[in-house]
Amino acid sequence: MFDQVTIIGCGLIGSSVFKRLKKNRKVKKVITYDNDKSVNEVIEKQKLSDEIFSNPNDAVKNADLILIATPISSFESVLNSIKDSFKSGSILTDTCSVKTSVNKIVRNKKLKNTSWVPGHPVAGTENSGPGAGLPDLFQDRWTILTPDENSREEDIKKVSTFWGSLGSKVKIMTDQEHDKILSFTSHLPHAIAYNIVKTSMDHDNKVKNDIIRYSAGGLRDFSRIAASDPTMWKDIFIDNSSLIIEAINKFSESLDEFKKAIADKNSEKLLEIFKKSKEFRKSIVQAGQDTDKPDFGRK
Amino acid sequence: MFDQVTIIGCGLIGSSVFKRLKKNRKVKKVITYDNDKSVNEVIEKQKLSDEIFSNPNDAVKNADLILIATPISSFESVLNSIKDSFKSGSILTDTCSVKTSVNKIVRNKKLKNTSWVPGHPVAGTENSGPGAGLPDLFQDRWTILTPDENSREEDIKKVSTFWGSLGSKVKIMTDQEHDKILSFTSHLPHAIAYNIVKTSMDHDNKVKNDIIRYSAGGLRDFSRIAASDPTMWKDIFIDNSSLIIEAINKFSESLDEFKKAIADKNSEKLLEIFKKSKEFRKSIVQAGQDTDKPDFGRK
Repeated sequence: MFDQVTIIGCGLIGSSVFKRLKKNRKVKKVITYDNDKSVNEVIEKQKLSDEIFSNPNDAVKNADLILIATPISSFESVLNSIKDSFKSGSILTDTCSVKTSVNKIVRNKKLKNTSWVPGHPVAGTENSGPGAGLPDLFQDRWTILTPDENSREEDIKKVSTFWGSLGSKVKIMTDQEHDKILSFTSHLPHAIAYNIVKTSMDHDNKVKNDIIRYSAGGLRDFSRIAASDPTMWKDIFIDNSSLIIEAINKFSESLDEFKKAIADKNSEKLLEIFKKSKEFRKSIVQAGQDTDKPDFGRK
Repeated sequence: MFDQVTIIGCGLIGSSVFKRLKKNRKVKKVITYDNDKSVNEVIEKQKLSDEIFSNPNDAVKNADLILIATPISSFESVLNSIKDSFKSGSILTDTCSVKTSVNKIVRNKKLKNTSWVPGHPVAGTENSGPGAGLPDLFQDRWTILTPDENSREEDIKKVSTFWGSLGSKVKIMTDQEHDKILSFTSHLPHAIAYNIVKTSMDHDNKVKNDIIRYSAGGLRDFSRIAASDPTMWKDIFIDNSSLIIEAINKFSESLDEFKKAIADKNSEKLLEIFKKSKEFRKSIVQAGQDTDKPDFGRK
């Protein structure tokens, strides 16, 4: 595959990539760069990198694949700091959760001898940082690649093989398609989870404590994704704002209809909605996207 | 404790009660009644009852504790069919998720020699029926008792001890307090989960299939509680409709504010919301209401 892979940004995603790479030994050398000292200390302590660089240019200059796994808001400055050191014939990829904006940034840089094959592994947990990385994070999850018309077929194949070696299934689509689908599968659910927690917190202390205490009735499920990395999600909401607002508006319209069914005590309508939801869940489990164990199998 | 307990309604909750009772042997005889033949077949096959009755009056006549674990919409007709057979000194309890409405029904019956101590175990999974019951369903979960001024102290204690023997922690509060708190911890999250699934389903088939395929980005979490028992939830939304509508309105107001922060690309505001959410999650985990394993520990 690749002789040398350089990972820029070693949070949950970046560290999960190198943990898996070190495990499966498909790449000869894995180099890491992170501008956060405390992150590098964890990497050094856990021996998660073949070489930790303090200068990003040095880190990328011999890389066959450069993987940017920083928050979206750092992407452009990181790219500016390394783009002149890429070796000829190298491939640049990333893990950003919004693709149109990142694609636009790279296109404007007019990279010459480096091929750009953007990607997004649809995987994660509510934890952040290199300590949270898991070698199996991508196992049987989807990675979506959103190459543009300039991406070479051969390089798309190489990046696909790379994600496949991390356990991932790979799908190729346009950046617009990606951002639209993810606005419903990921961004809207996160917006709603944040908002349900926000609504619950907006009570006096006694009620708030009771809400925490009895949260196992459903609320705790939402609180998990509402504990995701704040910077990453702030960036996503800003970068994909118009599609997310569209999704929220659709959600609100639907909620008004649902509220009407409750106010009217319309049993038939409510049962219809709930039965369809049950079917939808079944499809998600059948598609291998979730466990069929009750309560996610949690103890 | 009790010599004989009769469980009326053997779905997820009722069957979890008798599975635990048979395991811990704290009660001499456990009797079950369900009006659904297929339910009784499962109970018989799995030997989950000491005696299955086909007549509800026979089932309750020697019971020291009668536990009604039917959907709320069946509660009154079930109670009517058994109330004249209660033995003197017996205790009636239930597991309904809305307490004010059930309390009102029982108060109107003016039971004479039977003490009414309503309860609600805040526990469940997305599955239904006797096959879904789990002996550990109530372990370390809360059961809320909502006795009224007529409930005898002694009987409240007995019912508390009973739930404690099933592994549950017990809290006593008024029915109004219960319905208010649960409207935020359980009913609102379910309403929102149903609605997010409803919003996701409202697409053409191609997009809907993509949404299912990439649901691991967050949506799958919501789909689990949106797969809960339709009849039970239809009843809850109808019985606690005004408090649920209040909670939804509060949620919608909050969502408008959140949407504005996205539209304004207000990083500071978004970060503030997300950081507070992370703290809230921490409180839930610290309160023992959820696992601290990433991704609920699911595989």
